[in-house]
Parts: sequence; C-alpha cells; structure tokens
Amino acid sequence: MALSDVVRVERNEDGIAAVLGILKQRFGERFQTGRSIREQHAHTTTYIPTQAPDGVVFPESAAEVQEIVRACAAHRVPVIAFGVGSSLEGHVNAPGGGISLDTSRMNRVLAVNAEDLDCTVEPGVTREDLNHHLRATGLFFPIDPGANASLGGMAATRASGTNAVRYGTMREAVLSLTAVMADGEVVETGARAKKSSAGYDLTRLIVGSEGTLGIITSLTLRLQGIPQAISGGVCPFPTLEAASKAVIATIQMGIPVARIELVNALQMRAMKTYSKLDFPESPCLFVEFHGTEAGVAEQAETFGIIAEENGGGPFLWTSVAEERAKLWKARHDAYWASLTLRPGAKGLSTDVCVPISRLAECVAETEVDIAEMGLIAPIVGHAGDGNFHTLCLMDPADPAEIARVEAFVARLNERAIRMEGTCTGEHGIGQGKAGFMLAEYGHGVAVMRQIKQALDPLGILNPGKILPVG
Amino acid sequence: MALSDVVRVERNEDGIAAVLGILKQRFGERFQTGRSIREQHAHTTTYIPTQAPDGVVFPESAAEVQEIVRACAAHRVPVIAFGVGSSLEGHVNAPGGGISLDTSRMNRVLAVNAEDLDCTVEPGVTREDLNHHLRATGLFFPIDPGANASLGGMAATRASGTNAVRYGTMREAVLSLTAVMADGEVVETGARAKKSSAGYDLTRLIVGSEGTLGIITSLTLRLQGIPQAISGGVCPFPTLEAASKAVIATIQMGIPVARIELVNALQMRAMKTYSKLDFPESPCLFVEFHGTEAGVAEQAETFGIIAEENGGGPFLWTSVAEERAKLWKARHDAYWASLTLRPGAKGLSTDVCVPISRLAECVAETEVDIAEMGLIAPIVGHAGDGNFHTLCLMDPADPAEIARVEAFVARLNERAIRMEGTCTGEHGIGQGKAGFMLAEYGHGVAVMRQIKQALDPLGILNPGKILPVG
Repeated sequence: MALSDVVRVERNEDGIAAVLGILKQRFGERFQTGRSIREQHAHTTTYIPTQAPDGVVFPESAAEVQEIVRACAAHRVPVIAFGVGSSLEGHVNAPGGGISLDTSRMNRVLAVNAEDLDCTVEPGVTREDLNHHLRATGLFFPIDPGANASLGGMAATRASGTNAVRYGTMREAVLSLTAVMADGEVVETGARAKKSSAGYDLTRLIVGSEGTLGIITSLTLRLQGIPQAISGGVCPFPTLEAASKAVIATIQMGIPVARIELVNALQMRAMKTYSKLDFPESPCLFVEFHGTEAGVAEQAETFGIIAEENGGGPFLWTSVAEERAKLWKARHDAYWASLTLRPGAKGLSTDVCVPISRLAECVAETEVDIAEMGLIAPIVGHAGDGNFHTLCLMDPADPAEIARVEAFVARLNERAIRMEGTCTGEHGIGQGKAGFMLAEYGHGVAVMRQIKQALDPLGILNPGKILPVG
Repeated sequence: MALSDVVRVERNEDGIAAVLGILKQRFGERFQTGRSIREQHAHTTTYIPTQAPDGVVFPESAAEVQEIVRACAAHRVPVIAFGVGSSLEGHVNAPGGGISLDTSRMNRVLAVNAEDLDCTVEPGVTREDLNHHLRATGLFFPIDPGANASLGGMAATRASGTNAVRYGTMREAVLSLTAVMADGEVVETGARAKKSSAGYDLTRLIVGSEGTLGIITSLTLRLQGIPQAISGGVCPFPTLEAASKAVIATIQMGIPVARIELVNALQMRAMKTYSKLDFPESPCLFVEFHGTEAGVAEQAETFGIIAEENGGGPFLWTSVAEERAKLWKARHDAYWASLTLRPGAKGLSTDVCVPISRLAECVAETEVDIAEMGLIAPIVGHAGDGNFHTLCLMDPADPAEIARVEAFVARLNERAIRMEGTCTGEHGIGQGKAGFMLAEYGHGVAVMRQIKQALDPLGILNPGKILPVG
C-alpha cells in the first residue's frame, strides 16, 4: 500500500471559490488564506505529505460552526476540524482542498462540577489548560497523550496515553458532547448522568470518528480526584518476555497500577545517554501507583515481588516527587532521546495494540524484523494496554528508505491484526492507516460506510480519512 | 403519553405466513408456534401488555441466525432477539408480529483468556453460567443487574447494576462483539486489544441498541480478578441528603467503593420486616469494598469517618463472608420485601439516573410526589452512579391507578431529564420509554433514525422500540 492509494478526493473548484468569498465576507480577519497558515494547518508530524486547505476559519461559537458547515454543505466543500495539529496520521490534511475549521478560539471551560467529578469544555481547550484551570479543585483530567493536544482533537482520535491502564481512554472519559452535523444541525449526545441506557450511543460513535461524522463543539468530561500519594520507579528485566509476564501478573492480581510502561533495550540506551541517568541497558518497566500513602507502598512492594518472581529487579521505587519527576521526564523525552541514535533523521511512530498475552511475542517479532531490515527503531509501550510504539528513524529525502519503512509498518500492522489486535491503539486512522481497515474489520468497513453515507451524504466532513478508497 | 402511542407497527400477513412456512421446514422442532410459548416470549415483568410473536425459533449458530434474518428480510417480517426475557420495558414484545429469535441454545463459552482478563461467549450464556464457568480461574464477570440475565440481552440493553460504580456497565465490559446485521451479513466490531483508535466504534453502537441494529451472536467481555478481600456494611443517615453527601465525598476522595446503595426509609422498613434483620428505619447506605486485606480495612474506616462527618452512623462493617452475605441478601430481596407493603399488588420499577450532585434533590422531590399521589413506592438506588429505582406498587386491574402511576413516572422521567440526567440508567427504552426520547435527545433522535434507516432500511429488526413514532 502506498499513501497515494488512499487520499484522492476530487476538488470542487467552483464550490471552493464560492465558500472562500462567503467566509471572507462573514469572518473578516478570522478567515485566513495565506499559504503559510494554510500549510501549517495541514502539516503533520509524520512523513505524510502536506495537503493544504484553501482557507482557515476561526469560529468562536457553535452557532458560527453551524454557519460554516452550512456554507460548505451548500457548495459541497470539505470542512476539516483542527485542534492543535498534533495528530500523526494526516488527519488534518485536505486532499480535496476546502476549509480548515480551527477551534483554538473555542477555548473556554464552560463548567466544572466538582461534586460530580465532571466538567464541560469547548473543543479548543488543551489538556494542560484544563488541568491548570482545575488546580484549585483537587481534581484532574488524567488522559495524557504526551502532546498538549486539544480536548476536541483528543476525543476525535480517541486518544489515550501512559495512564489509560488506570483511567481509560477518551472513550471512557467523554461523558457526552455536542456536535454540529453535516447538515448544520446541533446534536447533544447525552447529559451528565454517569451512565444511561437511553438509545444509541452517539457519544461513542462521534468519539474516534476524526471529524468525519460531526464537528465537536463542546465536551463533558469525567475528572478524577488527585491521588493522596504517588509512588513509582523503574525495574529492569533480562528479557522482554520476562517484563511482559510481570505486567500480566500485575494486572491479574488487580493492582490498580496507574502507569506501566515497557521500554526496550535500545530505547533505554538512548535515554541513558540523553537524560544522563544511571539506567540499565536492558528492557525496563516504568511503573507508577496512585492511592493512599499505605496503598501505594503496598502496591509498590507487591509489584517488586512480582518483578523478582519473573527474574526482574531490583525495583527501586520512591514516593518523593522530585525523583519521580526525573524518571518520568526521561520517559517523556524518549522521542528526543531516540533521535540522538541517528542525528538528522526523522522519526515515524507506529501504534499497534494487541492482547497483553501477545505483547512479548509481538514486540520480539518486531525487533527481529527491525534487525533484518537494518532499521534503527527503538520501542516504548503502554504495556498494561498491550499498546506499543516503534520509532522508525529515517531519512525523509530517501524514497527507498521510506518504502522500506512503509513495508515494515505494513508488516507490523498485519502482525498486530493477526494477533487479535489493532493497527492503532491511540493515534487513529487518518490517511496513513486507511489501507489497513479492511484487514482489521472486513464487512465492518461496509457498515461504517453506511453510517458515513447516512450522516454525511455529501461527504463534506473531513473526506479521505478513515475509510479506504473503493 | 399513553403506551398505545408508541407501539403501532403494521402486520405484514403474507410475509409472516411465508416465513412461518420456511422456518418450520428448516428448523423443525426448533421452531415453535404454540400460543403459550409465543406469549412467554413477549411477556415482560412490567405492566406493558403482551404482544406475542408469530413464532419462536431456536438457532444454534451465527450461520443459523443469518439464515433466519435473511428469510425475514426477504419477506419483510420482524425478527426480535430474545435472551431470558428479564427486560422491563417491553423490549421483546412483537407489536407487528414476526419471529422471536431465542438465543438460549447459543450458550457456549467459546474462550477464556485468563492472561488477558477476557472471554468470548455466545449471547445465550447467562451471567451466572459465566461466573460458574470461571470459578477455577480466579476471575469473575462483575456486572450484576439482579436477574440472571443473558449476556447478549445485557449488552443489548446496556445493563449494569450494584457494582457499576467500580466496574462500569456493559458499555465498558464489552470489548467487541459479532452481530448479524439486517442484510444477513456478519460484522465483527473489533478484536481483543484493550483499546483501539481504528474507525467508528461499532461495538458501542450495537451495545444498547436493543436488537434494533443487529443481532448479537458473540461477545468478548472484560473480566476482573476476584478481590483478595471484601468488606462491607450498612450505615444509617438522618436524611437522604446526608446520605447523598456521604456518597459524593466517598467518590471525590477516590475511595474505589465496589457498591454503594441508597435505600430510603420506607424500603428499609419493608426489608427489616421481610428479612428479619435489625435494620434502622431511616435512609441507609449499603457499601462494599474490594481490595487487599489492608486496603478494604482502610477504605471501610475512611468511609466510616465520612459518614460521621455527614451526621450518619454508626457504620458497622465486617469482612466475614457470612455476615456480608446476609446484608446483601436483604438488599437483593428488596423487590420481594416491597411487595409485602401492599399484598396482591404488582410492582412497576422506574430507572432514572442524574448527576450525583442532584441525587438527593431528585429523590426528595420524588418522595413528595409519591406522598401527594397517595402511592406506595419505596426507593433503592445505585447512589454512586446517581441511578435510582422507585417500585410503584399498583393494582394492575385498576386502569385509573395505572394512569396515575404512568403520570407519576412521566413526571419522574421529566424531572431527571431536567436535572441533566436520563430516563433510564440501566433498564433501556424498549416500548415503555420511547415517548421520552425526544425530551432527552432533541435532534439526536433524528440522527438515531438516520442510523437505523441506513443499517435496517426495511425496519425488520425489533421494530417499534427505542425510537418514538413520528
């Protein structure tokens, strides 16, 4: 599969011209068509070539989003929701041109309901903004994909991150949302009750739909109480398999681990050099526990025993905030550390997720493939969820190398699907992975098409994403 | 709203006759048309009148479900999936006649993956069957709606129960499923990875769709480790408000309570008499904690302090299994205890769910309404989720009383929706609550109709449910 297979969307030149005129008149300075701002709104952090929209509009309310969508619907012009552009699979590219709808001015926290552990925000609020806003409440929003992404974008790609093993993903975190549908109507998918059995789950349908079914204009999110105590540390293992076995035993024993991250030997070496920490150069688990003082001590001790039983250790843990911060900074800097392994190279991040019983096997096969292909590609993973990333370091100017990496990624995705997993645990499909949807879902793709056709018959919402061509 | 408003579905006599012939020939003794078995398959435990299907078929495989659906599609005849018939809102009624598809012979546990904490089952497996099957694994399936419901039925109504506050609902418990769609094609909605960002969430779309979008033929379910220790007890409070405040504080402090059930004074009186236990006759919380020995003791002690701070107590707790069993038997017998308050009456259970900050207010207003209407209607609730049930005791032969209860239920549902809640936390919409969908979702109902039309254009899957007429 080459990328060019999946992104052909015809341009509707007359419609685009008409919409450019309408939006310029209506939004003035809040509508931009300069080349640099347009390219910035299609740019992604992957190797996928930039396909710029024809204009960028900055609405400030759901009513303005309705106006924009109605104008685009009337002229059959694509409209592509944009958060901060931190997605990795070409989600915000404009293969058929059209309008990028930038939500950065919809950045208000509308309500915080501390008693209910929920809040309602506009889609342009970032996760760091939200946690800053919550600082006096004793609550926090746990989902942390690394980047300071917008919450609308995180919902649209069903994002998660290091602590999903404890707190879930955006699938669980979004209680309900409002969205502007392709016909310009506003839908509220639910209220603030923690659960409901009333009708079809429109919330979960729109979460993960990458702007192809509706444009999110507000989100009601579950919050969590800040834990009284946190402990954590790093534990080396002789092999990936031993580390994976320790992960499985930890989960099976019901230890409510907040993070449990697998880092392979190559990545540990890069982190050791980059972060100047005395790390071992063998596979490691980075773990963190949240709870009461007594609880986190008990959890850490139990984990230490599990690690030892699986040939790992010593497990050095601490509940001193500064020491923990140093460890997690090293983990969060993994990407930058990796780049030092091949100066000048660009990184392409993969994102498969498998049942945790298959994690060791999947990582091991992938390491063999990396070695056989002569790639430099360290591995980090959210082991408690069976999700891992391979960062392929490559020269973006070398088409042969890109082809080699693409072939490697295709094999990796197929391997994960064969092991009852998925080609994406948290990054989404976008353009980059549409070619794997049929292998993963079979007839499910036809059902998704029926839904897309029913809710967006003109195909104006982020066309060319998720669903493969044909 | 009267029930007759929502259940008119025209009968297709010629089609039904044709399908009866086809199924008789194909399934022999596994196809039944006797009146008693037909009525048993439409009977529900509510006041909603029985509308029997024209025949009942007992498939043994997904392939047979496909055959049945294809025959019904070819002749435009309704097909209604049936688990054990424990739903409460007329879900399995056949307002336009048609075929009841009884899943009781699809009752195999297909796989248990202990390392991954998941299993795959056919839809006719009941939750008790599953837990019996799991007894040697150290794992259990936590969701407990009271009745020994089938897992297919529980998924179809998005069921939950007393321990959803800790373990979630069927929304969280179903990892993926397979379903036969209205065109007879089989869809697999996902694999066994714990999370995925690949495309539309078909799993969550079909969970809660009450057999109107597809017929579930297998389910992959998350399991939990059996906790090392369990503690629990009963705590009285002077008022509902005091009890609700204690619930909120418990959740806010992040105590991972496994059950926290609110029982009002009238219900306590009924339970005291029925279960012959020395219960107080004031509002009470029944609580349970799961964890390590040290953990559950710490949780119980912290809860006791919270209760006291809110004017409640004494909180008597135990980790002795026999004593806990006695308490929870009393709680689970609440329905039978209630019936003794008015011998000969039938009970109608309501099911609203509101943000927990509104729980006390919603229950208090409801108690006033009950008193003003002269109804006998005790209240129990899954307080940690803001979900509560009122059991209206009524004479099913008295139309005036039924009308009075219906008016009370309508006000209750509207009250919950006004308080940012839902008319059903766990029972589903079926026929009984279709009239409240517009108030709860507004334009969302139109979106649900678009999805229904796209996936079941002939309207053969459980017609007359969820979506209101018009």
